[in-house]
Amino acid sequence: LTKFRLAVVQLQVSSDKANNLSKVRRLVKEAAGQGGKVVLLPVRRSECFLSFFSKYAEKIPGETTQMLSEVAKENKLHLVGGSIPEEDGGKLYNTCAVFGPEGELILKHRKIHLFDIDVPGKIRFQESETLSPGNSLSTFDTPFCRVGVGICYDMRFAELAQLYNRKGCQLLVYPGAFNMTTGPAHWELLQRARALDNQTYVATASPARDEAASYVAWGHSTVVLYVLTLHVCGPTPDLQYLADVRQQIPISSQRRDDLYAVTAVQQGSG
Amino acid sequence: LTKFRLAVVQLQVSSDKANNLSKVRRLVKEAAGQGGKVVLLPVRRSECFLSFFSKYAEKIPGETTQMLSEVAKENKLHLVGGSIPEEDGGKLYNTCAVFGPEGELILKHRKIHLFDIDVPGKIRFQESETLSPGNSLSTFDTPFCRVGVGICYDMRFAELAQLYNRKGCQLLVYPGAFNMTTGPAHWELLQRARALDNQTYVATASPARDEAASYVAWGHSTVVLYVLTLHVCGPTPDLQYLADVRQQIPISSQRRDDLYAVTAVQQGSG
Repeated sequence: LTKFRLAVVQLQVSSDKANNLSKVRRLVKEAAGQGGKVVLLPVRRSECFLSFFSKYAEKIPGETTQMLSEVAKENKLHLVGGSIPEEDGGKLYNTCAVFGPEGELILKHRKIHLFDIDVPGKIRFQESETLSPGNSLSTFDTPFCRVGVGICYDMRFAELAQLYNRKGCQLLVYPGAFNMTTGPAHWELLQRARALDNQTYVATASPARDEAASYVAWGHSTVVLYVLTLHVCGPTPDLQYLADVRQQIPISSQRRDDLYAVTAVQQGSG
Repeated sequence: LTKFRLAVVQLQVSSDKANNLSKVRRLVKEAAGQGGKVVLLPVRRSECFLSFFSKYAEKIPGETTQMLSEVAKENKLHLVGGSIPEEDGGKLYNTCAVFGPEGELILKHRKIHLFDIDVPGKIRFQESETLSPGNSLSTFDTPFCRVGVGICYDMRFAELAQLYNRKGCQLLVYPGAFNMTTGPAHWELLQRARALDNQTYVATASPARDEAASYVAWGHSTVVLYVLTLHVCGPTPDLQYLADVRQQIPISSQRRDDLYAVTAVQQGSG
């Protein structure tokens, strides 16, 4: 099987957790009904309000991930559960849990690169004041292809995608919530850059834009493979097409491994 | 001095070498008259015809580089001399020679990544059938900033730009000649990606498009710093602005050096 249906859910996330969860359940079922085999959820709105992090933080497993597990199992698909605030050992993480078609927890990716930026007059955000970073790379296998996982700001770091590429990933997924400053400037460019440099599909899921929110998400969930004739693609990754592209412009085999290397230094836990 | 004038010369390159050289002399003088302190030339048309490589190959120093040295000295500027076919020890290289304001040869960069692609029905090119690759990274200092040099297909390899970034480069230059297939698809995206990921200025010089040529260059010489408010910039890199950008979104210091590394494996000669 070289094609599969990837579903990206861009929902309006509110501070009403029960409502969010019931929306997720409904939308994932809808995606499954349309043939979705891998479903990507956005970050929870709670990412956008650091003060809410401790309020909404859960253990994994916990209420939200229990529901995500059930939804994955009910619909027999891979579910990349956006990101939720995770509490573990007194620390908070921005965590993406991934579930398989039996409802099994496949991995949890804790955001490696915390979102600390300060653009005067535009936006200041210091995630590191509240959160701890993860220390592990996260990939998983589906019957279709290998997938690498990052969260939002992780996408700015080319090295992560390069390592995922070396590990054989054909699809990179980034639940995210860029804002109205960095969104128009960089959201699409980063995805196209990762896709072009690594010759992979890249998919992002953002919350829907809510102009009334104090942190307004850019939206623009995307699936992209930036190749010669196709810019932003539909939701059906074609792995044969990817293989063709990789053969036509064979940068993977043309890399000068004798001159440079991108390497994983260490993979700790957490 | 935090600003300087960068000149990119996009000239029509023909197979008449003497004519090309006299055009270069005239245009560099014109650029100097407009305040250009660093001048970037495109690849020679000879890059486009592999059979011409041996015919036009020169030693360095040789006729072309002697002229480039004189032109740099006459105009008291740094001259990134595009690329020319170089013969050395029975091997051919695609080489960019860089000269300083005293006419001194600062470095020669031999193209590291040879252009071997095969897109059925579009374009096939196998530079490695004729050329040998270089094995060295190439950076040089101006009174304004440090500059990293690549040639054309070198731009596809993110690692080279990442290493230049780690070496402190604030400007990356790529003489190039993308074609009518890869040009519209990737020429601008690659520059924007390198600029965004490394927070550097990126400049490219292409030959002017000549529809009558058998290899039609895409043209579109560009100077870019892809930041929040400015997409494609004019020819005046502002190093203070760059410093501000690097502080606002401080990805260099936020890289997880404990988790991954981009390293130079070896720097041989040649």
